[in-house]
Amino acid sequence: MTRATADHHLYEELATWLQSAIESGALRPDTRVPSVRRMSQQRRVSVATVVQAYRTLEDRGLLEARPQSGYYVRPRPGVIAPMPRTAAPTDRPTRVGITSLAARLMREASDPRLVAFGAGCPSPGIYPHERLGRLLAAAAREHSTTLTRYQVAHTVPEFAAQIARRALLDGYRVDPTEIIATNGCIEALTIALRAVARPGEVVVVESPTYFNILEIVESLGLKAIEVPAHPLEGISLEALRVALENHPVRACVLIPNGHNPLGCTLSDEKKRALVTLAADYGVPIIEDDIYGEIHFGESRPRPLKAFDATGDVILVSSMSKMLAPGLRVGWIAGGRRHEQLRDLRAIASITTPVVSQVAVARFVASGGFDHHLRAIRRAYHGQLQLYARAVTEHFPSGVRLSRPAGGFFLWVELAPGFDSLRYHEEALQAGISIAPGAIFSPRRRFRNCVRLNTSTPWSPRIEEAIATLGRLAATQTRGAA
Amino acid sequence: MTRATADHHLYEELATWLQSAIESGALRPDTRVPSVRRMSQQRRVSVATVVQAYRTLEDRGLLEARPQSGYYVRPRPGVIAPMPRTAAPTDRPTRVGITSLAARLMREASDPRLVAFGAGCPSPGIYPHERLGRLLAAAAREHSTTLTRYQVAHTVPEFAAQIARRALLDGYRVDPTEIIATNGCIEALTIALRAVARPGEVVVVESPTYFNILEIVESLGLKAIEVPAHPLEGISLEALRVALENHPVRACVLIPNGHNPLGCTLSDEKKRALVTLAADYGVPIIEDDIYGEIHFGESRPRPLKAFDATGDVILVSSMSKMLAPGLRVGWIAGGRRHEQLRDLRAIASITTPVVSQVAVARFVASGGFDHHLRAIRRAYHGQLQLYARAVTEHFPSGVRLSRPAGGFFLWVELAPGFDSLRYHEEALQAGISIAPGAIFSPRRRFRNCVRLNTSTPWSPRIEEAIATLGRLAATQTRGAA
Repeated sequence: MTRATADHHLYEELATWLQSAIESGALRPDTRVPSVRRMSQQRRVSVATVVQAYRTLEDRGLLEARPQSGYYVRPRPGVIAPMPRTAAPTDRPTRVGITSLAARLMREASDPRLVAFGAGCPSPGIYPHERLGRLLAAAAREHSTTLTRYQVAHTVPEFAAQIARRALLDGYRVDPTEIIATNGCIEALTIALRAVARPGEVVVVESPTYFNILEIVESLGLKAIEVPAHPLEGISLEALRVALENHPVRACVLIPNGHNPLGCTLSDEKKRALVTLAADYGVPIIEDDIYGEIHFGESRPRPLKAFDATGDVILVSSMSKMLAPGLRVGWIAGGRRHEQLRDLRAIASITTPVVSQVAVARFVASGGFDHHLRAIRRAYHGQLQLYARAVTEHFPSGVRLSRPAGGFFLWVELAPGFDSLRYHEEALQAGISIAPGAIFSPRRRFRNCVRLNTSTPWSPRIEEAIATLGRLAATQTRGAA
Repeated sequence: MTRATADHHLYEELATWLQSAIESGALRPDTRVPSVRRMSQQRRVSVATVVQAYRTLEDRGLLEARPQSGYYVRPRPGVIAPMPRTAAPTDRPTRVGITSLAARLMREASDPRLVAFGAGCPSPGIYPHERLGRLLAAAAREHSTTLTRYQVAHTVPEFAAQIARRALLDGYRVDPTEIIATNGCIEALTIALRAVARPGEVVVVESPTYFNILEIVESLGLKAIEVPAHPLEGISLEALRVALENHPVRACVLIPNGHNPLGCTLSDEKKRALVTLAADYGVPIIEDDIYGEIHFGESRPRPLKAFDATGDVILVSSMSKMLAPGLRVGWIAGGRRHEQLRDLRAIASITTPVVSQVAVARFVASGGFDHHLRAIRRAYHGQLQLYARAVTEHFPSGVRLSRPAGGFFLWVELAPGFDSLRYHEEALQAGISIAPGAIFSPRRRFRNCVRLNTSTPWSPRIEEAIATLGRLAATQTRGAA
């Protein structure tokens, strides 16, 4: 019998013992379990065996690691508020007008005095900035001649190769020559929309959806038709079929993985059905996969592009969002519209700096990106649970909460009639920024909802801010009743 | 009597002697004058005195320096073809549709097999790329923490300070807090247009104007009304008044210095009148000043913003165009719309990388930018003359040519009925890219015109390409006759 087999028995035994303690209630939610060293002494097993047992329970959703603090029993699903409701379908396209509020949210994100639950900016704490700075410096010295060249819509081959390599590992194919580098994901979305729709034409968006998608739709003079999305299941295929049947839809703009703001990820089966449905109507899909890397399941969910047989899915994403937002490096994999997209990329802002692309590519190639992703997945997942419990505790009864499968947003639904725009103002007065639900819909639905960014590490200041939000919500709810 | 005074007399005397030799025809156009050393020996004056005399004659437009070759007698105005004609006014706004051709031109600019007379990309030969690479590397090490932060619409103070300092030297004021960094000038123009007009509304453009301005107008679903511009005098104020009187104009998008494609620069008097006229109608001006630094006169021409009393001029420009196009650093000075522009900048693409802004700011602060500008002004001015002479020589009689006061474009007008779109194809077949006149107008006027980028240093290959263009033009002209 080898040592590894012996260890396997030992950690399985330990994990089973702990699991029954948790399930029986002997170890209660939110309790810190003994440190690895102490448990190793108590049970007379190796440190490695304890670590393996704790990780196994973490995979089973029973324990969670909290940075610099140790392992805790995860709150049970029952203690979290119920899920938000799904919107009703709409019957006609709408002109969009959310620019001023969206811009205000972005501005609040940069205000260090505010507790930043509003805009979708990841908390800067855990980024590998020194290493990135060195990579960027090396790229600047090595590629200085490219600084002074007009290289139009130039994608650095080593950058494209890293994206193609990751796609293969995730179970689908992207041709490296199909990759177009952009100045972040927002520019990529703008270029993709311009490739498929002209001013006055209609596109499908999810209801709710990321407000910057709506902002781009507005800026290009397009109309949006909202198709309801369920907080766990995502977009309604039935409602989508009705929209495609009744309107001259030019494209669907969707967030299939770690949806913003709902946090849901579509199943592979549903992704396949969705791509087939759109293809049946000859309608291209623009897929925003920016939160695909921040998943809480076993493996990285595949994008819609993995199920695309016709080349009509335009995949847009960014590695810099999770890595170095200040670098501004996104990309498009455009399928059969590649050449048109490359041309539109050229006239949008010429190109993305070569040195930025090289720095990101090298960080990915070194394994540093995957290491970083593992750390933020763990951190964000844990934080989401903590935020959800605190909202459940501090908000008025009747509050509803999403169950994100990825990303770092929590979608909070309050009583019908709740005014999240007024709430946004009241929260700002209390030093807290939130994203009011109305900006996630061209028709200003979800006025009684709020999106919270949970990427800031848990702390007494965060808990206090959530308690404050809860009090403000209760005051408004009482006032309305 | 000091030595400096003596020298002053000596070089003035030498300059006067040379000038009369040129004006009498004793020294003929295009003749190389004796080298500085030889002239110094012949006339028994110091080398410095000869250099000063040659420079004085260069300032007077009588000599020109040709790189690595020496000083030549400049061709007299009479040997250059006459000027192009001015367009007639139009009576209604037009939807724009030039994207595909504009994108194609950009693509051709990156094709190393083509002689690149087409897109507006400066020739890369004379850029200080090593020094810029070092500055960028230093900035990346020093500012690595900013890579990982979401700093929304963040303009680096030292970057803004350099722009404000240069404005003061050029005789006008820009408040550093008014500067917004962008990813190049095209993004700046897009943001500025979004600040003043919504889809379906009308803006004034010059006729002809830079095709990327039209491309942005198209992408935002705006309509354009064309106001004629004279090749020397620029936009017609009379025609502008008629347009402002008869249409609900939301903004004027103008290129007052080193106009693209005409090369003209408005006089201060006309700039003042133009700003006053727009203010009378309450219409903001978006001013593209990207060629303001490449002027051929004594001093840098001021932008319209220098004459702005109401804060309604939005100045957009870029330092990276002339310095490091691959860096993508432009800027906006927005006047009274600053806050709105900053918000739109945030939702356009979040921000411009801090390290790029820092690298550009330090290059400017070091004096490197001014040194570089002096070199390219001299080079571009000289090249423009050489290209103009070659076009005059090789193109069919009846050809007309602009007289640029700045920039690096030559605007060539051929016989009425000449088809520059067909010519564009024929030139490509011969390995030469040009910009057909039709893309400089929403109504596809100027079909018989061509814009040539003259930033590639003069060489036998360039001369041969112009001779080829001349033959192709002659063939088409004969075919039409």
